[in-house]
Amino acid sequence: MFIRVVSEILEDLRQVLQQVDEKEIDNFVKALLDARRIFIVGAGRSGLVGRAFAMRLMHLGIEVYVVGETITPAIREGDLLVAISGSGRTSFPLVAAETSKRLGAKVFAITSDKNSPLARCSDYVLLVKGRTKDNAVRDYISRQLAGEHPPLTPLGTLFELSTSILLDAVIYKIISMLGISEKEMLERHSNLE
Amino acid sequence: MFIRVVSEILEDLRQVLQQVDEKEIDNFVKALLDARRIFIVGAGRSGLVGRAFAMRLMHLGIEVYVVGETITPAIREGDLLVAISGSGRTSFPLVAAETSKRLGAKVFAITSDKNSPLARCSDYVLLVKGRTKDNAVRDYISRQLAGEHPPLTPLGTLFELSTSILLDAVIYKIISMLGISEKEMLERHSNLE
Amino acid sequence: MFIRVVSEILEDLRQVLQQVDEKEIDNFVKALLDARRIFIVGAGRSGLVGRAFAMRLMHLGIEVYVVGETITPAIREGDLLVAISGSGRTSFPLVAAETSKRLGAKVFAITSDKNSPLARCSDYVLLVKGRTKDNAVRDYISRQLAGEHPPLTPLGTLFELSTSILLDAVIYKIISMLGISEKEMLERHSNLE
Amino acid sequence: MFIRVVSEILEDLRQVLQQVDEKEIDNFVKALLDARRIFIVGAGRSGLVGRAFAMRLMHLGIEVYVVGETITPAIREGDLLVAISGSGRTSFPLVAAETSKRLGAKVFAITSDKNSPLARCSDYVLLVKGRTKDNAVRDYISRQLAGEHPPLTPLGTLFELSTSILLDAVIYKIISMLGISEKEMLERHSNLE
Repeated sequence: MFIRVVSEILEDLRQVLQQVDEKEIDNFVKALLDARRIFIVGAGRSGLVGRAFAMRLMHLGIEVYVVGETITPAIREGDLLVAISGSGRTSFPLVAAETSKRLGAKVFAITSDKNSPLARCSDYVLLVKGRTKDNAVRDYISRQLAGEHPPLTPLGTLFELSTSILLDAVIYKIISMLGISEKEMLERHSNLE
Repeated sequence: MFIRVVSEILEDLRQVLQQVDEKEIDNFVKALLDARRIFIVGAGRSGLVGRAFAMRLMHLGIEVYVVGETITPAIREGDLLVAISGSGRTSFPLVAAETSKRLGAKVFAITSDKNSPLARCSDYVLLVKGRTKDNAVRDYISRQLAGEHPPLTPLGTLFELSTSILLDAVIYKIISMLGISEKEMLERHSNLE
Repeated sequence: MFIRVVSEILEDLRQVLQQVDEKEIDNFVKALLDARRIFIVGAGRSGLVGRAFAMRLMHLGIEVYVVGETITPAIREGDLLVAISGSGRTSFPLVAAETSKRLGAKVFAITSDKNSPLARCSDYVLLVKGRTKDNAVRDYISRQLAGEHPPLTPLGTLFELSTSILLDAVIYKIISMLGISEKEMLERHSNLE
Repeated sequence: MFIRVVSEILEDLRQVLQQVDEKEIDNFVKALLDARRIFIVGAGRSGLVGRAFAMRLMHLGIEVYVVGETITPAIREGDLLVAISGSGRTSFPLVAAETSKRLGAKVFAITSDKNSPLARCSDYVLLVKGRTKDNAVRDYISRQLAGEHPPLTPLGTLFELSTSILLDAVIYKIISMLGISEKEMLERHSNLE
């Protein structure tokens, strides 16, 4: 039974990920490589997905910071903010995006809603479909009325898992472009924990 | 090209996940539901995967803590430590596992290596295959000699992504067993960020 | 020379702390003990001061959460938000305070500016003087014109150190009132790091 | 009554801080300025004190990382680890110190116990007296037998507050030596929260 659950989740992820626009990925990779420094922001599980991405960017030798961590400096012109929010309405990444724009930095939103406040205030958008927690209750009620099962991927799970995989595919793309070896990555990997 | 990369990652994940032992999942769910309180520990990206799992357990109304966060209390008899480490050799989760055992708490290891120090000091093991960062360099050298491409999923990526999906499948299993509605989960979801 | 620097900092702290209104401390202790659950929020070094306070509250057996950490649930009516910001203008605690008010929770601000947006949206204010980073540049220019030394306590340092000591005095007050032994505190102290 | 509690805490801090060896402070400042990069480690409230220090070092333009945060890279020869632990026995900073030594980095311990494992494995020690949580229970029993009050500064409070002030005095010393203006510090101060 468990393997069937896993297979359905993987199939849902495949469906979300094949809708991602290849052009948006290219823009994203270009923006990452063009930026003087990269700042990552997200709340909750989206924030954790962002940190996992930031850690790999550091392994690639790219200067990156996570908003809210101790040594994160001021963002400035020439820097890129990557703001991750399924709904595009979470206040923490939204405020960071608006502030970054005002300070002259570029903003790349990763979101499920291209009409959200986050998407609208960003320079670029990378659209990743997936039920976000904001439409979760509506979906739940429909399913209940229809006598269906609980959702496989409650709240923002589908967006978060899809974005995790997508960002690791982006890392692979950068590795291929820059010719970075796994040995180099391992040499930068934290060795004090 | 990007969708092909994503497809290959999904296929790798499927292969890892179908090797997971259904019995170990059952043990894991039982241990989670039997525990007085749950503590989660992991370093680096495994730690982030653990936090994403902890957040969902909280949404289910289960008492859970992340080792290293501010309000995490002392572990005691009756509690369960879930220690996540691909190699099973990372010192932070390993020390936490050994200490937990000594204090009379149960330990569940999620690891790729059933002979690792972490697996050996744990009460239960949930084996999730996947290249861990410890065998990454050896693999890299083999691939170089064979003229192959860089790895799709460098360092611990395969273990981390597989474990993310697996733990969300475990959450689904608990939701189904306990009959928890998405509305209840949303009501517990952090509303201050 | 170093001991002279330390003595001057201690004297500055004494001056700030003796201006704290004893009545506000009493209100604060009462609010902490009356709350169903306590949530702590702050950005940067004020956030770190808040976490140190949260950790001690946990040692006292009080249910407390830090906004932004993994297992922090939704705030609701009956809960208390403690928002720490010298300037009372930092967006992260300010948004949390406004949201908490809207959701029916009480808000206690610890700030240097009783006319700040944070103080104005809060139910109670605990005023802790001290140069905040917002008036730092103006002070700096005055000192430069006057040929004076660099500030002993740059940016928000004076507010942060004063608030640290004040919150540990609050902990002492709660210990005395509730008759909690140090042994009990030690038994709750994290034992996995 | 509250102001009397605060005065006694300040007096305790003064007594601890005037015992600090000026020579050790000079060594510490020299080690900080000589290091290629600085890494800070501590658990619990000592870890929070370390982060507050790391944040100010970043404001001074010094390259610094906190062990356990997302973008912290591998430590290497030429780097300095600052390990903070009152007892000098906490496993997280101790393991980091031992690993750093093995990898050829320098280690500076800030501790209350010059005979602790941490002090013994470090290149330099900065001794900050203060009851640590390890001798707290013994003290408590003596006080109980003597009919005394609960301790003003339970567990590691005295060490943590003393070290906070001491590290801000070190920041002042570096500011004076390097002639860094508060304006420069403010320009580096995080602007996205």
